[in-house]
Amino acid sequence: MERRMVTCTAPVNIALIKYWGKLDEDLIIPLNSSLSITLHQESLRTTTTVAWYEHDSSIRMWLNGEELDVDANLRIRFVLDELRSRSRPEFRNLGFRIASVNNFPTAAGLASSAAGLACLVYTVAELIQYKETFPGELSSIARRGSGSACRSLDSGFVKWNKGSLVDGSDSVAEQIVDDMYWPEVRILVCVVSDQKKTTSSTKGMRNSVESSELLKYRALSIVDDHITAMEEAIKRMDFNTMARLTMKDSNQFHAVCLDTEPPIFYLNETSKAIISAVEEFNAYSNQEDINELSNLMLRCFPPRLSAAEVDSSSPSIIGRDEPSKPLSAAGEHVLGKVGTRENSVQYFIKTRAGPGPLRMSDTSHLLDSESLEPKT
Amino acid sequence: MERRMVTCTAPVNIALIKYWGKLDEDLIIPLNSSLSITLHQESLRTTTTVAWYEHDSSIRMWLNGEELDVDANLRIRFVLDELRSRSRPEFRNLGFRIASVNNFPTAAGLASSAAGLACLVYTVAELIQYKETFPGELSSIARRGSGSACRSLDSGFVKWNKGSLVDGSDSVAEQIVDDMYWPEVRILVCVVSDQKKTTSSTKGMRNSVESSELLKYRALSIVDDHITAMEEAIKRMDFNTMARLTMKDSNQFHAVCLDTEPPIFYLNETSKAIISAVEEFNAYSNQEDINELSNLMLRCFPPRLSAAEVDSSSPSIIGRDEPSKPLSAAGEHVLGKVGTRENSVQYFIKTRAGPGPLRMSDTSHLLDSESLEPKT
Repeated sequence: MERRMVTCTAPVNIALIKYWGKLDEDLIIPLNSSLSITLHQESLRTTTTVAWYEHDSSIRMWLNGEELDVDANLRIRFVLDELRSRSRPEFRNLGFRIASVNNFPTAAGLASSAAGLACLVYTVAELIQYKETFPGELSSIARRGSGSACRSLDSGFVKWNKGSLVDGSDSVAEQIVDDMYWPEVRILVCVVSDQKKTTSSTKGMRNSVESSELLKYRALSIVDDHITAMEEAIKRMDFNTMARLTMKDSNQFHAVCLDTEPPIFYLNETSKAIISAVEEFNAYSNQEDINELSNLMLRCFPPRLSAAEVDSSSPSIIGRDEPSKPLSAAGEHVLGKVGTRENSVQYFIKTRAGPGPLRMSDTSHLLDSESLEPKT
Repeated sequence: MERRMVTCTAPVNIALIKYWGKLDEDLIIPLNSSLSITLHQESLRTTTTVAWYEHDSSIRMWLNGEELDVDANLRIRFVLDELRSRSRPEFRNLGFRIASVNNFPTAAGLASSAAGLACLVYTVAELIQYKETFPGELSSIARRGSGSACRSLDSGFVKWNKGSLVDGSDSVAEQIVDDMYWPEVRILVCVVSDQKKTTSSTKGMRNSVESSELLKYRALSIVDDHITAMEEAIKRMDFNTMARLTMKDSNQFHAVCLDTEPPIFYLNETSKAIISAVEEFNAYSNQEDINELSNLMLRCFPPRLSAAEVDSSSPSIIGRDEPSKPLSAAGEHVLGKVGTRENSVQYFIKTRAGPGPLRMSDTSHLLDSESLEPKT
């Protein structure tokens, strides 16, 4: 049979309405629907190459050049077995060789596992030439790998419907509008810490589901209204409403974390200062210029790292070496109130909405076509 | 007529179940009931002297030696007018001269206005020899001065019932058990900051009532259960349940603050580290010894100030000069996990439950009996 190898890329997504809490831990059915923006892959992306291995059904996988213990990773195994079982009969006993790289640091809080699992599912589906039997089928497989991965399979603004079926088959992602619908939207990611979170999302969610009285109320009685209002704001391109709802929902997610036993603290002093600075900036006047905001952020939070010092090949990194530009009146006002906190932010990423997963040309393969191990 | 002068002291109280949000801003009717512990006056107290002034109905008042603009303080005027109107007819047109001192710094987050208003109401009531016409009547007057002041009129554990009458007349404090019922309880106050809060309680509550979806749910559907469980825990002297509920409710209060637009941040990095340290300490084993805990806190958070440097005459201050003592196994475990943060705490106050307001002897008067101005 022919040697087959496919390489694809997939984007990171950032939630505007947050996913927090599972109704079913095994099936990864969320307590509430969520909504995200797909970040442009020119800035942040995972690239994955998957090749068939003809000799046996073994799986080997390398992440950023390091081999993973695939046997120990039940989520990845599940996703691969699920897709393999849907391939043409003659392929069902073949193995996989997989290489995946992120062009951004893993621990920057950018949901690398979401991009990674989305990319894996998409790339394997391309390899096995799998066509969805219902809309969102691939997203439901990615969801089993890493919940919010399902939202990285579409461009623009994406909603993850919690669904209502007990097997989770309708807990799928759905595009609201694509990345061309509202091209002016920009995202400034402030990487406050490059340390791993002290409480993993999985453990934190479980604790919140078990102990937070506020989470149940949020999931059952609040989030659907946030989603509806956000969808409407996006469709009519109402920036102020979108921004207000994003902050409201984000703060409420952190509130639920605090209401958990033991409490989960994901916001540090720098995060709080950034939130306050943006609140001040928006309150001063309706500011919609990302450059105004990024100039202000660079002055209030001069980054610790230069772009070259960040372990990333992204062209969208803004670091210590970014030249300072004059501030607007709004900027001067906020800088006067907030002041300057040196080295509290690591670096910034300035980006926009972008496409879903993309198939690359054969020149992009990460695996050597002979050895089926990562190219060096 | 005889010159009459009375001096009383009143305690600080600390909420175990928090008051946050007013149903009626003018009448100070709370959205939810709350429950507090009255701290012992050997540690923290307000002392207030009130004298009649025979020449006219004027009011002058000194707080910590500085004269207040009483005309500008509607809450104090209201409380004094309310009590004066209930005095014997021949006293109704007399004035007041008032001196009040706290034995602790005003901005340490110890609810000095609660102790102050409770002391003012109690002292004036003693002066006019006022007997309550229903239980909690004085607490309802103190409430109009400063909401949680109503809880400082009783000893031990005190509940502030939100009440159900539109005039607020049944929104009164009620004792659960007195300070002798459970004498082993100790309180360690960690004064993290001696700066004024960035958002006042009044403004913060108003913003939360207007914007927090979680506050409504908390006030209507959660707090009553917390109060019932807390009352039962106190009555059966169940320390673990009391401690767990206290932290749960406190974290939930901070969660509601975060869910407010704009978000209110009352917890800083040090507060969060203290919470985590205590969670670790309690998780290691059932630790009920305040000395173990205070030894640990002194090691994890060596205070910035010595007892002499704190603007306080309280004998319960634990400062930088407190000798270090060996840690228990639990303490060593937590210190290893949490580490040491120099100068992040200002000082500690170690105390216990105590009595309600007390009448002092005539030798305690803060006003000169001739000039009716503060003694120097």
